[in-house]
Amino acid sequence: MKIVVDAMGGDHAPEAIVAGAIEAVKEFQVTVVLVGLKDKIEAELQKYQYDQKLVEIIHAPEVVGMDEPATVSIRKKKDSSISEGLRLLKDPQYNAFISAGNTGAVVAAATIYLGMLEGVDRPAIGTVLPTLKNVAFLMDAGANTEAKPVHLLHSAHMASVYAREVLSIENPTVGLLNIGEEAGKGGTSTKETYKLMQEHVSNFTGNIEANEVYSGKCDCIICDGFVGNIVLKVSEGLMENTGKLIKREVKKNPFALLGALLLKLNLRQAKKLVDYSEYGGAPLLGVNGIVMIGHGRSSPKAIKNAIRATIREVEHKIIDRMITEVKK
Amino acid sequence: MKIVVDAMGGDHAPEAIVAGAIEAVKEFQVTVVLVGLKDKIEAELQKYQYDQKLVEIIHAPEVVGMDEPATVSIRKKKDSSISEGLRLLKDPQYNAFISAGNTGAVVAAATIYLGMLEGVDRPAIGTVLPTLKNVAFLMDAGANTEAKPVHLLHSAHMASVYAREVLSIENPTVGLLNIGEEAGKGGTSTKETYKLMQEHVSNFTGNIEANEVYSGKCDCIICDGFVGNIVLKVSEGLMENTGKLIKREVKKNPFALLGALLLKLNLRQAKKLVDYSEYGGAPLLGVNGIVMIGHGRSSPKAIKNAIRATIREVEHKIIDRMITEVKK
Repeated sequence: MKIVVDAMGGDHAPEAIVAGAIEAVKEFQVTVVLVGLKDKIEAELQKYQYDQKLVEIIHAPEVVGMDEPATVSIRKKKDSSISEGLRLLKDPQYNAFISAGNTGAVVAAATIYLGMLEGVDRPAIGTVLPTLKNVAFLMDAGANTEAKPVHLLHSAHMASVYAREVLSIENPTVGLLNIGEEAGKGGTSTKETYKLMQEHVSNFTGNIEANEVYSGKCDCIICDGFVGNIVLKVSEGLMENTGKLIKREVKKNPFALLGALLLKLNLRQAKKLVDYSEYGGAPLLGVNGIVMIGHGRSSPKAIKNAIRATIREVEHKIIDRMITEVKK
Repeated sequence: MKIVVDAMGGDHAPEAIVAGAIEAVKEFQVTVVLVGLKDKIEAELQKYQYDQKLVEIIHAPEVVGMDEPATVSIRKKKDSSISEGLRLLKDPQYNAFISAGNTGAVVAAATIYLGMLEGVDRPAIGTVLPTLKNVAFLMDAGANTEAKPVHLLHSAHMASVYAREVLSIENPTVGLLNIGEEAGKGGTSTKETYKLMQEHVSNFTGNIEANEVYSGKCDCIICDGFVGNIVLKVSEGLMENTGKLIKREVKKNPFALLGALLLKLNLRQAKKLVDYSEYGGAPLLGVNGIVMIGHGRSSPKAIKNAIRATIREVEHKIIDRMITEVKK
């Protein structure tokens, strides 16, 4: 198995990417193909000892910046590590592609170079979220901001397969993110989506309200890319700003400070639960190939775990299973 | 000044509602008009000593349940405390209406009995959110789930007036909630809204991403009612479930438990910041009258603060000012 990794993508590239790739090589005995500026990759690799048969380098002369508009990057940088890495997947010896780089550029390039999965019209990004019980799989996290009901139906099918095969959730339930629990809530398009899912998704449990996203009520939570982005970013901002607020208050009071220290030292397990790097990355589903998008701030551990997730996707033949599910 | 209060609305009605009304009567010397089942209101009132000239009771024989569909409640319960209370506002001696009851029913009845504000097509609900710096005013929290660009433009105008007049924010900034900061982000409708706001909203500061909602970056945050509902409910659910998670972990470890106790005892100020009852309620803007919707779980303090907010709305002639702003 060969996993292609964009060595140039992410805020800490190539250092963190190469470090994570080497960890994965050692832990999973998989071949990692690093794509990007050859000199830089080689310089990073010299820091490690590893089985050289399991690491390949493929030179790509261009690098897409984290904030570059996706369309421009696609047109002007045809030989970027993103485009080059994705094109490799046409050769069946390369099984999956991972990038912690520019999300928009990865989505656009994957759509162009891999094409869509049979029966699917639009790509969608899934995200694994921690819940009180286990994890939930939210989709779409931002690839398709103007999703039609049928796109959301496809997302439901693909998310079910991913949750079952990669996250090992038996008979995953599927909920439609909505502003009320009752059928008939939401706008015209949401109501139509509800009907479609009721007819075609076997484990559909109806609407799920946003306050239940983290409760573990539902395994797969389906929404369009605009709403999904809002869910993730509000969560991120709320945690960050609550943290800042508590820190500010804690500094004013020595007893509170002591309490915070004691709590921090003893809450490792809770922290692990909300640590994105445990899940590695966000799968881009709907394109005709296994693609994983890492967080821009990906650490070596996140990259290693992203590689682990793609290995599972390959082993569980997720592409074939998604095609079958969508056709049902 | 006479503030009409739905005595039957909310999970703790009529007890909490009457208690809050009496607190307001004492603190603000305002007349409160309690609408609902006369017997029940009188029984509650007997618990308190107060200036009887400042409390009126108006009997309404029907009560709308918290989960009743709005349309049904409007058609079948024309003499509910909500409908009766709102109809009172046609008489200029009654200045504002407050209900912690069924939100959908209040929005529908207010639209029918008060009509729309001159120049405004759809009502919207505003919510005051705590931020790291002060507060932000998010609108729409759920009245209009399929808002067109022009509806969002009107929301921007109304929110500015509310933030300035009621929340005392000087020159409030207005941001459009979007999935990226740059102009040109989001779907067709969001892009059109951006253009409209750029042309017509004087303090428009562009897009705001959801991770900045609580940072204090922007005073008024504009979005449609679907997205606004998601923002509020995700926040609510995340805080609740993180709390549960920490509690569960803390119980396993005595040091963590001690830390949590010390923190809890010393974080009163931070707690106050995230206490919805400080802000009382969510104004329903766009209808031709002052209407405030309380949280279903409203405490007496929340009701008192909702009354305080409507007094400010009346004193600052918010209806006239909104009409002027929308016409600009």
